[in-house]
Amino acid sequence: MPILPRRFERLRQVLNQRMGDLTVVLESIHKTHNHSAILRSCDAVGVFEVHAVTQNEADLPTFNATARGSQKWVRVHLHERIEPLLRDLKDRGFRIYGTQLGPRTIPYDSCDFTAPTCFLLGSEGWGSSAAAQALVDHAITIPMMGMVQSLNVSVACATLLFEALRQRRVRGLVPMDRSGLGPEVYRRTLFEWAYPEVADWCRRQERDYPDLGENGEILEQLPRNVRLRC
Amino acid sequence: MPILPRRFERLRQVLNQRMGDLTVVLESIHKTHNHSAILRSCDAVGVFEVHAVTQNEADLPTFNATARGSQKWVRVHLHERIEPLLRDLKDRGFRIYGTQLGPRTIPYDSCDFTAPTCFLLGSEGWGSSAAAQALVDHAITIPMMGMVQSLNVSVACATLLFEALRQRRVRGLVPMDRSGLGPEVYRRTLFEWAYPEVADWCRRQERDYPDLGENGEILEQLPRNVRLRC
Repeated sequence: MPILPRRFERLRQVLNQRMGDLTVVLESIHKTHNHSAILRSCDAVGVFEVHAVTQNEADLPTFNATARGSQKWVRVHLHERIEPLLRDLKDRGFRIYGTQLGPRTIPYDSCDFTAPTCFLLGSEGWGSSAAAQALVDHAITIPMMGMVQSLNVSVACATLLFEALRQRRVRGLVPMDRSGLGPEVYRRTLFEWAYPEVADWCRRQERDYPDLGENGEILEQLPRNVRLRC
Repeated sequence: MPILPRRFERLRQVLNQRMGDLTVVLESIHKTHNHSAILRSCDAVGVFEVHAVTQNEADLPTFNATARGSQKWVRVHLHERIEPLLRDLKDRGFRIYGTQLGPRTIPYDSCDFTAPTCFLLGSEGWGSSAAAQALVDHAITIPMMGMVQSLNVSVACATLLFEALRQRRVRGLVPMDRSGLGPEVYRRTLFEWAYPEVADWCRRQERDYPDLGENGEILEQLPRNVRLRC
């Protein structure tokens, strides 16, 4: 069964708003409900992909009802080591903003998050590692007025992401006509969103995804057992 | 034992930043970790007191580790009915901002949250009640770009509170020299924060709290069994 045109239009509309130049690196975040809440905020703000660093496979992020299915719409890349990831992001033009308490930090809302921006968020207990902090471009802080000296990590993440979105909206950079994703990434992602099971089948077959028509119909004759999964 | 002067100074510093003109009404929020995360954000932003409405005693909010003890620093008033509460807040000059999806809503970041502001947050499943919505002054929305059409309630709350704090900081209204709390509320709260167990004893005795000296020492001779709790 082909996708309903209305559903396809909605997927395209959301993908058009996805920002490739706003991302989050999660370093050893281990609570399921934090991961879930963060992914949901990323989806809401329009983050295309995030990065999770974990040295222990058993700590791989999972999602619960809090995510409301947002893990389907935000790509999570897994990494074993933080340094090569941050170096790669820096090479690609991202500024790395690390949240930490301390003297040489700047308030988050005096930063310009309209350029390519990466927020580094450390684990619930210990914050980000020394190795990660050494690669941070700007150490930022969320001004706090209370007795408790830290924020829940998903709250901190949302505060930063919505400030980035606010700044981009004020500057007229959002909403966009078309996301800044490359055409090939756009094409592949749209197919995966529209036909996740066919996309799985294509990957197992090591073949490219078929092209889609204007209303989301698959422009190719697929084997019958694959067509049934559409 | 009297309170350590440094600790007393810290309590006073935080209380000086508490805002009596920024509050949150939680209508039937029932998840412990949401309650906890919301209280922690309120403490961080400098909210003095919040209101929780619940018709069922068994649904009374509790707190878990996510709160990090913030429930000690933000007063939670419990109410059975929402209408008298919202009417009272309006009589006291608060503008009620309700978050909802819908056509006649305005983006949260185009509102002025520097005047007395109350955020109404509805339950995780159903949002706020029709009775509550009828008393809302401004229906606001947090612009969302994603597939999932709602935010986690604690994330929504934090986004609104930190925007209010940001606006107040930009206007130079925060940090304050002294909170806008009345002198009697200030005096009582400072005592309760410094000596929670003695405050309990005073309330059971139906007597007023003793005065405190400049360094937080109790300026009155209390019975020996009470002095031991200091």
